[in-house]
Amino acid sequence: MHIEAVDFFYLAMPEVTDEADGSQDALLVRVAAGGHVGWGECEAAPLPSIAAFVCPKSHGVCRPVADSVLGKRLDAPADIARLSVEVAYNSMDLLQAAHTFSGIEMALWDVLGQARGEPVWRMLGYSRSHPKTPYASVLFGDTPQETLARAREMRARNFIAAKFGWGPIGRGDARADAEQIAAAREGLGADGVLLVDTGQIFIDDVERAAERLPALEAARAIWFEEPFAASALEAYGALAQRCNTVKLAGGEGAHNVHMAKHLIDYGGVGFIQIDCGRIGGIGPSKQVADYAVAKGVTFVNHTFTSHLALSASMQPFAGLADHRICEYPAMPKPLAVEMTANHLTPDANGEIAAPDAPGLGITISAAGARKYLQDVDIRVNGQTLFATAAL
Amino acid sequence: MHIEAVDFFYLAMPEVTDEADGSQDALLVRVAAGGHVGWGECEAAPLPSIAAFVCPKSHGVCRPVADSVLGKRLDAPADIARLSVEVAYNSMDLLQAAHTFSGIEMALWDVLGQARGEPVWRMLGYSRSHPKTPYASVLFGDTPQETLARAREMRARNFIAAKFGWGPIGRGDARADAEQIAAAREGLGADGVLLVDTGQIFIDDVERAAERLPALEAARAIWFEEPFAASALEAYGALAQRCNTVKLAGGEGAHNVHMAKHLIDYGGVGFIQIDCGRIGGIGPSKQVADYAVAKGVTFVNHTFTSHLALSASMQPFAGLADHRICEYPAMPKPLAVEMTANHLTPDANGEIAAPDAPGLGITISAAGARKYLQDVDIRVNGQTLFATAAL
Repeated sequence: MHIEAVDFFYLAMPEVTDEADGSQDALLVRVAAGGHVGWGECEAAPLPSIAAFVCPKSHGVCRPVADSVLGKRLDAPADIARLSVEVAYNSMDLLQAAHTFSGIEMALWDVLGQARGEPVWRMLGYSRSHPKTPYASVLFGDTPQETLARAREMRARNFIAAKFGWGPIGRGDARADAEQIAAAREGLGADGVLLVDTGQIFIDDVERAAERLPALEAARAIWFEEPFAASALEAYGALAQRCNTVKLAGGEGAHNVHMAKHLIDYGGVGFIQIDCGRIGGIGPSKQVADYAVAKGVTFVNHTFTSHLALSASMQPFAGLADHRICEYPAMPKPLAVEMTANHLTPDANGEIAAPDAPGLGITISAAGARKYLQDVDIRVNGQTLFATAAL
Repeated sequence: MHIEAVDFFYLAMPEVTDEADGSQDALLVRVAAGGHVGWGECEAAPLPSIAAFVCPKSHGVCRPVADSVLGKRLDAPADIARLSVEVAYNSMDLLQAAHTFSGIEMALWDVLGQARGEPVWRMLGYSRSHPKTPYASVLFGDTPQETLARAREMRARNFIAAKFGWGPIGRGDARADAEQIAAAREGLGADGVLLVDTGQIFIDDVERAAERLPALEAARAIWFEEPFAASALEAYGALAQRCNTVKLAGGEGAHNVHMAKHLIDYGGVGFIQIDCGRIGGIGPSKQVADYAVAKGVTFVNHTFTSHLALSASMQPFAGLADHRICEYPAMPKPLAVEMTANHLTPDANGEIAAPDAPGLGITISAAGARKYLQDVDIRVNGQTLFATAAL
């Protein structure tokens, strides 16, 4: 079959705030090929990502993503891998291209899975989709009291693991952060699994980040996520040397496989967190999972949006029984819930798994998505390059 | 003063081909502050870069570049550095932001230089703008005969150095490439300075790249540029170990300072080539120049567009007398020539220098630019987010 159409749908909440909550908007991608329709989601700024698909060519290696995708063959996983290489080369000077292609790549796997009647994880070479322990991904409260309440709420909802991130952490002194971290531990209880995410707040300042280590280790946090900017490998490497029980985690900012490998090799992370909607899709994520296994590092998904993105992000490590922990957006905005008709709900053991169903196993709710649809119109010299299609 | 307005102008040739010629379009940036007007240029896909400035916010750290720039203070170089940090943080999930901000950052220096009556290189701490030896940057011909003719033409135009790149190199076998490289050497003459650019064609295949080393060293090429993808640090590092007389060059794909440092530290390049219009502007480029000096690596500009971009890209190493070689677009499209009223023409010694004039020292030709102006209109829900302003 051939790739006949690629359509983008920009969804947004009526109000988008300054919270670090990635579920406030979404860029849904629909791919049609050979009578099948597949869906994917870019974890990316919608408007620049759409523009990177439709923009006029700048030169031979600054081409719109559309040039490498539309009309191309899609019969096997190798075709998807070939398209990834072509996009990377033909759009090497178009920075946004990796984010744009990520959602398309997921949708290509979804189409192929439907055509073959196979789940994506099986096409990746796995024989089974192992259950994962979802951790609730929430933001720190404005005060330790709010964080305590939020942690208790997550335990009440049967999450045994929770990640607290962003909010006031790193904006004040280490003592204020220690109180927040202790509150999260208290609310989760002694047996809860505690993860902490500081959202790049220390940029590349190793000393300021290191001041947080005693509180993290006293609270028995499993990981210390994104102390630094995504590319600050030296800072990661230096801080990793100073960790005793806690391990560094990072990788959500990786927009190619190399960047993720560098965080492992030069940055010394113990957990490599990959967002399928940014790194170029499922194929590149699987390459990182393979590399993590070889290097004794744990692979974890990064997912803060819908269950379409969640299913896609679980495929690359679905078959790795020992890589059990899995990010699960615990307080998503209604948009992220309503855009899919089915959801990956924890079972009686509190576990989730990548669906044993063709493709990604997630059905889009057109009615749910339409409530949040933004009408986009991009013209150059009066010619329409993009107009939102019917959903 | 405060940043009052930022306007983008998308210029393009009537026909844009698949050549790797970056002068076929341009994204010009105009900044107004305190009664002054400054100009910059993004070396980037225009439409996604504009979208990254005007797009609606996705969440707290996926904000449009405009949010971090418009209305902000601009009184000193430290203000520009602060804005760079804010854009990197506030737009950490907006991949295109670095390319968008690069042109703005140049324009901020241009404004500040005009307000102070100082050239940018002086504000960067240099006491003098040293002359540079421009190398003609041209593409390999389709045949060795064409390459020979092109090399002779460059010598006839008094360039003592020339870089040949792209075209058929790496698409056939090593013997075909050896003929091309030998033709370039023959055309330049025994005393010409020969540089070779393979435009990432080997992706991360060290063996295929290494097959080209004998021909490069036999032809006494000074550098072997971009054998691999911008992020393939391990491949760079492995190939660097196998070089005898030729050194690796790379860095034009760096969209932050970290990436450039990694190419030096992990990739083993001998020449670090920075495009001011991609790495975030002049300030980050100066940081790389300082790092290169400390590490014994030679800093070189990457410039394939207008003389506005050329002046901006020369500022960061204008004061480094020993870093003499300088990229000079030798066969630019008319657009890149006509958009500026003045040009950095080689003097009697065949040398050029960053202008000793306020700001970047380049005057835009509105009439010249207008001939190539593309009318852009971006709307979301019927509301105009971007419409091309009057130039």
